[in-house]
Amino acid sequence: YDCSLLSDINRLFLCHTLCTSESLLCEEWASYGVFYKYQPIDLVRKYFGEKIGLYFAWLGVYTQMLIPASIVGIIVFLYGCATVDENIPSMEMCDQRNNITMCPLCDRTCNYWKLSSACATARASHLFDNPATVFFSVFMALWAATFMEHWKRKQMRLNYRWDLTGFEEEEDHPRAEYEAKVLEKSLRKEYRNKEKGQQLPEEAANKWQQRVKRVMAGVKLTEKEKLTWKDRFPAYLTNFVSIIFMIGLTFAIVFGVIIYRISTAAALAISSSPSGRSNIRVTVTATAVIINLVVIIILDELYGCIARWLTQIEVPKTDKSFEERLIFKAFLLKFVNAYTPIFYVAFFKGRFVGRPGQYVYIFHSFRMEECAPGGCLMELCIQLSIIMLGKQLIQNNLFEIGIPKMKKLIRYLKLKRRRPVDHEEYMKKKQRYEIDYNLEPFAGLTPEYMEMIIQFGFVTLFVASFPLAPLFALLNNIIEIRLDAKKFVTELRRPVAVRAKDIGIWYNILRAVGKLAVIINAFVISFTSDFIPRLVYLYMYSESGTMHGFVNHTLSYFNVSDFQEGTAPKEPMELGNQICRYKDYREPPWSENKYEIAKDFWAVLAARLAFVIVFQNLVMFMSDFVDWIIPDIPKDISQQIHKEKVLMVEVFMKEEQGKLHLLETWRDKDKRKGENCNSHSPRSSMSHRGSVSSCHSCHVDV
Amino acid sequence: YDCSLLSDINRLFLCHTLCTSESLLCEEWASYGVFYKYQPIDLVRKYFGEKIGLYFAWLGVYTQMLIPASIVGIIVFLYGCATVDENIPSMEMCDQRNNITMCPLCDRTCNYWKLSSACATARASHLFDNPATVFFSVFMALWAATFMEHWKRKQMRLNYRWDLTGFEEEEDHPRAEYEAKVLEKSLRKEYRNKEKGQQLPEEAANKWQQRVKRVMAGVKLTEKEKLTWKDRFPAYLTNFVSIIFMIGLTFAIVFGVIIYRISTAAALAISSSPSGRSNIRVTVTATAVIINLVVIIILDELYGCIARWLTQIEVPKTDKSFEERLIFKAFLLKFVNAYTPIFYVAFFKGRFVGRPGQYVYIFHSFRMEECAPGGCLMELCIQLSIIMLGKQLIQNNLFEIGIPKMKKLIRYLKLKRRRPVDHEEYMKKKQRYEIDYNLEPFAGLTPEYMEMIIQFGFVTLFVASFPLAPLFALLNNIIEIRLDAKKFVTELRRPVAVRAKDIGIWYNILRAVGKLAVIINAFVISFTSDFIPRLVYLYMYSESGTMHGFVNHTLSYFNVSDFQEGTAPKEPMELGNQICRYKDYREPPWSENKYEIAKDFWAVLAARLAFVIVFQNLVMFMSDFVDWIIPDIPKDISQQIHKEKVLMVEVFMKEEQGKLHLLETWRDKDKRKGENCNSHSPRSSMSHRGSVSSCHSCHVDV
Repeated sequence: YDCSLLSDINRLFLCHTLCTSESLLCEEWASYGVFYKYQPIDLVRKYFGEKIGLYFAWLGVYTQMLIPASIVGIIVFLYGCATVDENIPSMEMCDQRNNITMCPLCDRTCNYWKLSSACATARASHLFDNPATVFFSVFMALWAATFMEHWKRKQMRLNYRWDLTGFEEEEDHPRAEYEAKVLEKSLRKEYRNKEKGQQLPEEAANKWQQRVKRVMAGVKLTEKEKLTWKDRFPAYLTNFVSIIFMIGLTFAIVFGVIIYRISTAAALAISSSPSGRSNIRVTVTATAVIINLVVIIILDELYGCIARWLTQIEVPKTDKSFEERLIFKAFLLKFVNAYTPIFYVAFFKGRFVGRPGQYVYIFHSFRMEECAPGGCLMELCIQLSIIMLGKQLIQNNLFEIGIPKMKKLIRYLKLKRRRPVDHEEYMKKKQRYEIDYNLEPFAGLTPEYMEMIIQFGFVTLFVASFPLAPLFALLNNIIEIRLDAKKFVTELRRPVAVRAKDIGIWYNILRAVGKLAVIINAFVISFTSDFIPRLVYLYMYSESGTMHGFVNHTLSYFNVSDFQEGTAPKEPMELGNQICRYKDYREPPWSENKYEIAKDFWAVLAARLAFVIVFQNLVMFMSDFVDWIIPDIPKDISQQIHKEKVLMVEVFMKEEQGKLHLLETWRDKDKRKGENCNSHSPRSSMSHRGSVSSCHSCHVDV
Repeated sequence: YDCSLLSDINRLFLCHTLCTSESLLCEEWASYGVFYKYQPIDLVRKYFGEKIGLYFAWLGVYTQMLIPASIVGIIVFLYGCATVDENIPSMEMCDQRNNITMCPLCDRTCNYWKLSSACATARASHLFDNPATVFFSVFMALWAATFMEHWKRKQMRLNYRWDLTGFEEEEDHPRAEYEAKVLEKSLRKEYRNKEKGQQLPEEAANKWQQRVKRVMAGVKLTEKEKLTWKDRFPAYLTNFVSIIFMIGLTFAIVFGVIIYRISTAAALAISSSPSGRSNIRVTVTATAVIINLVVIIILDELYGCIARWLTQIEVPKTDKSFEERLIFKAFLLKFVNAYTPIFYVAFFKGRFVGRPGQYVYIFHSFRMEECAPGGCLMELCIQLSIIMLGKQLIQNNLFEIGIPKMKKLIRYLKLKRRRPVDHEEYMKKKQRYEIDYNLEPFAGLTPEYMEMIIQFGFVTLFVASFPLAPLFALLNNIIEIRLDAKKFVTELRRPVAVRAKDIGIWYNILRAVGKLAVIINAFVISFTSDFIPRLVYLYMYSESGTMHGFVNHTLSYFNVSDFQEGTAPKEPMELGNQICRYKDYREPPWSENKYEIAKDFWAVLAARLAFVIVFQNLVMFMSDFVDWIIPDIPKDISQQIHKEKVLMVEVFMKEEQGKLHLLETWRDKDKRKGENCNSHSPRSSMSHRGSVSSCHSCHVDV
């Protein structure tokens, strides 16, 4: 294409983009080679409009903010690696001399085991369960607050640069679907009235006339009639029931995976050889997480479609309200879908196990699963990392690259079949807009934002258990920006440019996730990690003032003669030993209230809860403080806006004065030439406005 | 005064107010007789300006919102009164048959006592310590959120009605004090430079000239030079140290009152007759609270002055910043001053007592004080009600009425002494503005707001312990509105009208108090009241499923032979009994770890903390929800504003078009008459702009 040969319209719509922006965009933006550069946001905005420009600006700010978070995350992880050999609890667990016999992990088939065999998990667990993690989750909460503030300022700056400061979103027109529904309702009402009034032909005729008038009036109809709560009730009910059902479905699937895990573990324990038994836990955990991941990805697509359908039957009035309702529903479903298995591992797994001799059973046959000896945090970390990475790799990258490419291929093949002979020739002759029509239509920014918000959740919500999450998010986003850019430039039809001042409801969702993150991290640190029990041991029980003896303190005693019939392991214990240990704070068999919950349990629980309160309030206060000290509008921008306002008023006044002056000189000229207009001077005309109304030139005084 | 006789200026400034507004204001507003009516806010705004109008509007909204809060508070109180006879714990305490012997309340002089003698306090305590209180504090947290939202909407409505929607606060000019300081700084710099450059007369001369230029430039000086952090450091340091010192002083005084209470109680116990001893607690508590009250009122005035002085030495740049800094400091100091004794009673009193045989002593001689047997909530309630009522009665009403009246009297007497003879005659002849000059000058709205915010704190912060607080606040405010109105109309010089869009920093302070209230109420319910121990007893320990046995469960056992030497009461116990009881969860003397903290203590503590977490998060979530569902701008107002904007643009466009049209007709006329202007038609002139620049009339095209 040579731009100079194109017509005017084409210049504006095509050549502009082909010769300058698009090739520039390809070079400077939609290319993996420039990943280290800032995005040319102004160019993006010029080509795609403000709304998409804001999305990429937001993505850029988010990715940029992930850099410090990743660095601190790596440092925290390295701290864990460096201190793993100095960690007394894991050293004690690995010490062969301690030789603690643990109670079996399943009924009958499992055997007693030595604590030192769990040495590796204990050491690995220290990588993520150390005091630096506490610091890191405080840091990430403040990071989230800073990110929100930073984005607000960037948004304001862009608003100013893109001349949106005075822009207000226009009142939306009702959607066609809404108007159709309202029309249908009023027609049905008419019909019903007509049927009733069959006996009164006069009245019916009147009504009919009224109806014709109203339908003719068209616009006025929608103003008068509107959908009441009664009309919407069935849709709302469907929505509510469906959402509850889908959340229930997610829970059921997670529960199913738990059952799978328990039963497979039991089955493998029976059948496998002694050497294979050690691999059981790894096998079961890995397959279960992969099942979870696959289910999450499938349900994600399904829930997206269902959310759209549910919003359609709701018939929202405006496009904006449609989008907001859709986003809210889709977010709720996808959030529950992505995080339920993680919540289970973090807060429920291993907490309802019961105790040896009185285990809790599901369906009277499956014993509830316990956490690994290193604590549940390790498992949470595995679960989190696999789901996060898998979701990003498969869903975000594979799907986003693969599916559009496939769709394009299919469309191309279809086209070829239709015009098998002269296809090549036809393609050559085609206009640009004809080629573009073959591209995938633009489906809105919702999926792009959704993907990023769910990722933001992985980065903030459980960051206490997985400090490398920001790093993985950063790596993903560096690719993601260019991937999205490529998709927008080459795979999708060019979207209609839409103006927007902000990222809308997404900002509120981000805020909500940030707030939720504080409380969830507080619970992860205090309940999932061993941080609090260690502190309590150090300050309340330790005689030497060190962590020596901590492992022993967390294990309760059990007399093997107290096993219920049929649950004791087949292989008996070594001679002379009647005691096995399990992880809980309960009274020993020689106590009066044997196996009852001990005082230590309550003390640790109180400490855990106190930590949650302190952590939550402290972090919330600090976040509010960050929010307060960083002004929402950058100072230079606010000054510039103020200056421009003053200037504009000045210019306006001057211009008005100039015009008035001009009019006066002309009128004076007119007067001098003795025209038939008997106008007064502006001053005196004030009081005689009526008398000069016939004179056109005097209107200016008014 | 007959208005028709006054000159124009007087009509505007005086007659307007005397003949319409002021008398109207007196009748309709500044009169106790109209307390049940809405305030004529528009009239207030017309006479006093927007800022004061907003204050009274806010006070009106607050008072109005107190009505439902008072009603619910009264219902909660009545519920307490109605259920006092069905309350099993207090019934058990009053039951003579239980006959529990309690350990003495002070060393040596105090005797063992029967629990049934504390029957009255236990019954009274139920009035404020019942499940309805929990409901009431949730209600009040939501009430606070609703109030904030309601005010935002009201403010928006007033903004629209008073035509402030487009109003932006102008950039403040620097304060004179600030400019003086900057000038002083730059002069000192010059001087120092001059001294240094004594050997270089040329350079010095240059500098001198520069300085003269800069001083002449005046305004530019302040733009270039400004106070850096280094200049301000001494002031900041002074501020910081003074505030810390004053907070320390408040703490010290509260501590002093505690010592007074302990020592007086001990002294009275030694000296008084047995009959008088029962009155000791009442006497000591009452005098201590009154001392607290007096100290609070004195320090309040003192801290107000100190805050102003501290802000002055800080030399803030603008008036707005001065006001904000002053308010922040004054609020901090007055808040700490008013609430420290209450915080002490709520969260610290009776918690560091130790146990019989091992009490905690201050200065090795004073035993820490305990709460009454009915719990600390009763004492908190007394403390709160006396301080709140006393502060309102003395400070708000007595001071506000009395002091201006006294000052007026003094000024009047002074005047009379100066002109003893013709005073009466002089007064008659005087102009209105001369009479007005004798009034007290207007000192800003800060004290008025401060008073109300501190009251808002009493209403929300500890409402769990005193459900009648809203009622007392309501009664006070009904008087307060009219009192303030009277003061503004008759006692103060008419303030200069100031425009304002909102109540400024006070809104943020209100929000902060509201947020603080949630967490404080959570702690009051769970730690000060007996709500949680009762629940724990009911669900964990009670065998019958009722509250029977609760009192017994909360009392630990003590063997009187374990008293430290010299601390046992002089009068021995009745024969055969070696055990006295005290309120704590500790192991009994016959246990292995006698007098150690028992398991129950930790269980109750965990329950208390869990309650705090649940309560805080639930209430915060509900508040956010209220915040979210109530739109900030009333729908009718936002629609109206939008409509007006559209209309304005339309009118503007039409007018512009009219003017252009007018100009064109004139020009055409000009042309027809063969003037010497060779202007082109507007269309074609676009491309030949240069050639027509000599023609005046064609400027319009540009």
